[in-house]
Amino acid sequence: MKKVEVALEDRSYDILIDENLISKFPVYLEGLLNRKFLAIVTDTNVENLHLSILLTTLKNAGIETKVLSIKAGESSKSWETLQSTVDWMLDNKIERNDLVVALGGGVVGDLVGFAAAVIRRGIQFIQCPTSLLAQVDSSVGGKTGINTSHGKNLVGAFYQPSLVISDISTLKTLEERDFLAGYGEVAKYGLLGDYEFYCWLEENAKNIRNRDIHALINAVAHSCEMKSAIVIEDEKEQGERALLNLGHTFCHALEAATGYSERMLHGEGVAIGSVLAFDLSAKWA
Amino acid sequence: MKKVEVALEDRSYDILIDENLISKFPVYLEGLLNRKFLAIVTDTNVENLHLSILLTTLKNAGIETKVLSIKAGESSKSWETLQSTVDWMLDNKIERNDLVVALGGGVVGDLVGFAAAVIRRGIQFIQCPTSLLAQVDSSVGGKTGINTSHGKNLVGAFYQPSLVISDISTLKTLEERDFLAGYGEVAKYGLLGDYEFYCWLEENAKNIRNRDIHALINAVAHSCEMKSAIVIEDEKEQGERALLNLGHTFCHALEAATGYSERMLHGEGVAIGSVLAFDLSAKWA
Repeated sequence: MKKVEVALEDRSYDILIDENLISKFPVYLEGLLNRKFLAIVTDTNVENLHLSILLTTLKNAGIETKVLSIKAGESSKSWETLQSTVDWMLDNKIERNDLVVALGGGVVGDLVGFAAAVIRRGIQFIQCPTSLLAQVDSSVGGKTGINTSHGKNLVGAFYQPSLVISDISTLKTLEERDFLAGYGEVAKYGLLGDYEFYCWLEENAKNIRNRDIHALINAVAHSCEMKSAIVIEDEKEQGERALLNLGHTFCHALEAATGYSERMLHGEGVAIGSVLAFDLSAKWA
Repeated sequence: MKKVEVALEDRSYDILIDENLISKFPVYLEGLLNRKFLAIVTDTNVENLHLSILLTTLKNAGIETKVLSIKAGESSKSWETLQSTVDWMLDNKIERNDLVVALGGGVVGDLVGFAAAVIRRGIQFIQCPTSLLAQVDSSVGGKTGINTSHGKNLVGAFYQPSLVISDISTLKTLEERDFLAGYGEVAKYGLLGDYEFYCWLEENAKNIRNRDIHALINAVAHSCEMKSAIVIEDEKEQGERALLNLGHTFCHALEAATGYSERMLHGEGVAIGSVLAFDLSAKWA
């Protein structure tokens, strides 16, 4: 297992990266649970793929659970779903010392992280990202939030998880298009200034595309190390963290033009945006 | 002028306490404004009493303003008003380096502080409390939030202001009942373990009730010093900060029983709750 530490003083946490982590979930809860209870928020897609494994292992460990499944897709990053998620937590008497798990991709992670940030002025949460994009980007660094009619992620909080559990096995269930879109963010880390990593990606492209577990563990761990190093320097994006937005200026314009729809996925926008950014800088060089 | 510092590392700020501070507002913005622009949120009561003085002095200093006036009263601490306040900020192109002023009592301060905490994942805000309750309690310490059908302040953030400007002159315009309710929180500080302050309050009760400016400055400043000392020790209420809830257990029960209505004001509940708490502890002693 690879472990990446995000060292942020009293907000520090680990990212655990390996296969089959969900089936061993209770092991990693050591010291985090104040009572044998866990609230889980997932979505209507991920629910069918990974929830039963998680529930079985928690049940075997004597941990009681409550589960909320939100509608899959970007439209759930809304005021409405934020409010209904918080209401669900209050209905289920989530207390200040309880723990919530976000099981899913970036939408679930961003929404649940924000809900955790604001319920009772902040409770602990665990990111359990199940998409490549979420494992290398959105689950790390504490950016949480929702979209409004004015744009994406305009409302939210910098709020760090207590733990990130990246189960690489979940990447086997991704649709090819979602998997490749996530790779757009991985390639970004190579392009950001790690020539060695970029060369490694070029050499291992085939293994990664075939979803070889060891290649994926390496790619995710290295991406998280780079993101962690930047977040440690600039948690609230006052400067250097903006580096992570490579390719995102064009991406945001393309996303607006395609109505934030399935016509173009965020990772695809990052990949196309990076190419356009390089083209532009070459022209102006 | 009295100045109380709330020392919280990179979240430190000053509380300025004096008469006629609103009419000198631009002086205190030194170093806080990134452009000559200020967003102001107030309510339909305070608007008529103190807004024009603020707008005049800002205009004379060449500072552009946008003003939102929310409905006065506890019902504005809601998801709906939070969302409409954030939408108003986005409509008016409030950027990450802009500053928002909360001009009003506890409702305005709690709501605007929370809106500032979540818009663009956090922008700076100034508390300009105009009620005695807000000057000695809610404007200090960074507790922001809204109510839900499950109860009061169940959704919010610990989010510190950049500055608190407590203009004691505004207390002259308070209804007698609101003024006395605020005094419930002041008396609480004396009871919390400052015998000398409690004696001073007993001696100066008449001056305070007559709203003598110097007595009020002293009472507000001393209350803020006590609250600041406790908040510095325990910003996120893991322990000692719960001391500030003296009288609040009974108060919350009384508020629930009276439907969080005008039948009993919060400060009145704190005063009654403190008496009940002392009665109970005397019986069990």
